[in-house]
Amino acid sequence: MRTIYWENDQVKMIDQRRLPAALDIIACKTHAEVARAIKDMTIRGAPAIGAAAGFGLALAARQSPARTPRDLLADLQAASTLLRSARPTAVNLAWALERVMRCAESKTNLSADGLREAILNEAQAIADEDVQINKRMAEHGAALIDDGDTVIHHCNTGALATVDWGTALGVIRTAHEQGKHVHVLVDETRPRLQGARLTAWELEQYGIPYEIISDNAAGHFLKTGQVQKVLFGADRVAANGDVANKIGTYMLSLAAHDNRIPVYAVVPTSTIDLSLASGDLIPIEERDPDEVLGIQFHGESVTPREAEARNPAFDVTPNRLITAIVTENGIVYPPFDVNLSKVVKVK
Amino acid sequence: MRTIYWENDQVKMIDQRRLPAALDIIACKTHAEVARAIKDMTIRGAPAIGAAAGFGLALAARQSPARTPRDLLADLQAASTLLRSARPTAVNLAWALERVMRCAESKTNLSADGLREAILNEAQAIADEDVQINKRMAEHGAALIDDGDTVIHHCNTGALATVDWGTALGVIRTAHEQGKHVHVLVDETRPRLQGARLTAWELEQYGIPYEIISDNAAGHFLKTGQVQKVLFGADRVAANGDVANKIGTYMLSLAAHDNRIPVYAVVPTSTIDLSLASGDLIPIEERDPDEVLGIQFHGESVTPREAEARNPAFDVTPNRLITAIVTENGIVYPPFDVNLSKVVKVK
Repeated sequence: MRTIYWENDQVKMIDQRRLPAALDIIACKTHAEVARAIKDMTIRGAPAIGAAAGFGLALAARQSPARTPRDLLADLQAASTLLRSARPTAVNLAWALERVMRCAESKTNLSADGLREAILNEAQAIADEDVQINKRMAEHGAALIDDGDTVIHHCNTGALATVDWGTALGVIRTAHEQGKHVHVLVDETRPRLQGARLTAWELEQYGIPYEIISDNAAGHFLKTGQVQKVLFGADRVAANGDVANKIGTYMLSLAAHDNRIPVYAVVPTSTIDLSLASGDLIPIEERDPDEVLGIQFHGESVTPREAEARNPAFDVTPNRLITAIVTENGIVYPPFDVNLSKVVKVK
Repeated sequence: MRTIYWENDQVKMIDQRRLPAALDIIACKTHAEVARAIKDMTIRGAPAIGAAAGFGLALAARQSPARTPRDLLADLQAASTLLRSARPTAVNLAWALERVMRCAESKTNLSADGLREAILNEAQAIADEDVQINKRMAEHGAALIDDGDTVIHHCNTGALATVDWGTALGVIRTAHEQGKHVHVLVDETRPRLQGARLTAWELEQYGIPYEIISDNAAGHFLKTGQVQKVLFGADRVAANGDVANKIGTYMLSLAAHDNRIPVYAVVPTSTIDLSLASGDLIPIEERDPDEVLGIQFHGESVTPREAEARNPAFDVTPNRLITAIVTENGIVYPPFDVNLSKVVKVK
């Protein structure tokens, strides 16, 4: 089963807010519903929300009453603006929208219905290619994993974060399928707990041994020689190799670096944003304080009723802490400002 | 109200597992009940469990049927062994037990009842001195806080972690009372959430402005220039200045150091263990995995039913990341292996 797919003129997706308690599929009938699903994290993970954005435009095309390609393009432009505003940090969202819009703009010789078909085909291609790209990334990345490794993994980067297979977790999965023994220390990844909820659930399905740790514990395991690799995905990589990823990635990378443990970011080239010279330019989303304050322990609220919270969802890990960036086109080593552009296809 | 006190031949303490939902006082009638309260974290915080251990011996003395000082000492020794085993990392526990035992051993010329009285007096002195020591630490430390500072604070080091006033949070409290505007970013401190539960609750009482953050977010705030100081307490400081403290302290200190933000550990000299040359020798407690797995969000369990967890409760922050150690006898700067011994009174 894919995390997101097109079926009966609807976009179907796993509701990731409900896992692991329930595996529910929800259907979006309009691009506005897709935008809401991205915003409220029914679907999350940079590649997955890229695919969702593409399908969102296909829904917008289908629902538009336009009779001319020109009118259809205008409606698509409005839909694209709405979808793009759903989340700011992951560049895959903008990347997919731009790719579908470029496709549409290049085919205005078609009828409106022909254009609708072409747009759906492009969205479908983004989704299908994501799976292939992930498997190629995983092949490259698995070569970095040694038999017997214990790895720390942050957030969720598995099948659920993509259309299928995953980025960093895809690397672990491929290494496991190659017969390597890999043990995963799963950062629970406060505040949304994508590690404790989603990565743990995926590893159960794959039969890969794991233990959940509080994010705070990663430093102790790194410092005491119990970890050989650190892996995560990314929401945006700047041209200099600075990596925006789930909050906590920066401190995790510092601790790995302080103990000479390799740090690998695993990303499709669609996550690399060569237009930004450094990570300082990446917009960092701040989400609802309730994601922090709503925590409970054994049925009881934890925080005082009057408490307030700050909730940045991402941080930027400077390139000096990243050992290598694994892409579908190969493994990129520093200097990233020179080497990243070699693996990114010119549009 | 003190966190722990002697009343009617019982040891009374605030049940810290219930805060902030309820402010319950529990009574321990035996030293075994005190040991259990330390182990299950009804009472926690290095200075507070030191005081609890002292009162625990006073209970053991009171309940012992011994008629001679010699028999009483034997019963005390057994009680001391049990109390010491309750938690391994905070040295204050052993420190208080040794202090009371030394007092008892020096007064075997007294009658058994006279010795019982002397032991209770010594335990009471430990508790009373803790408050005075904290206020002296707070005066020293407050000089390091500037008007307008935003500080990150890890775990709970307030009145609840001590007999009263607090260590690192005591510094913040004194700076606040001096009229300095201090804003606290409260690390929630997974897995036991002492920040979100206890520090937030204390700051509400004191009227000090604060916001709770996920532990993962500290690095982002430090890296983006939003924080001027990092403060925490400690469970044990080695002779070289390595600091064992609540899990996560190491990564927090790395992030502060990476951004040239001062890091202050605030500890009574009873937390300094000159017998250990380095932090690598400090025993690190690993607690029940359920502290990690029992997390819920809006009433729903988060982790898969089959999930396992690792749960080290402390980590060691190397001395190179510590700017200064604030004690009741003054502020100690590096080199700690030379300067720490100057503030610790020879027993």
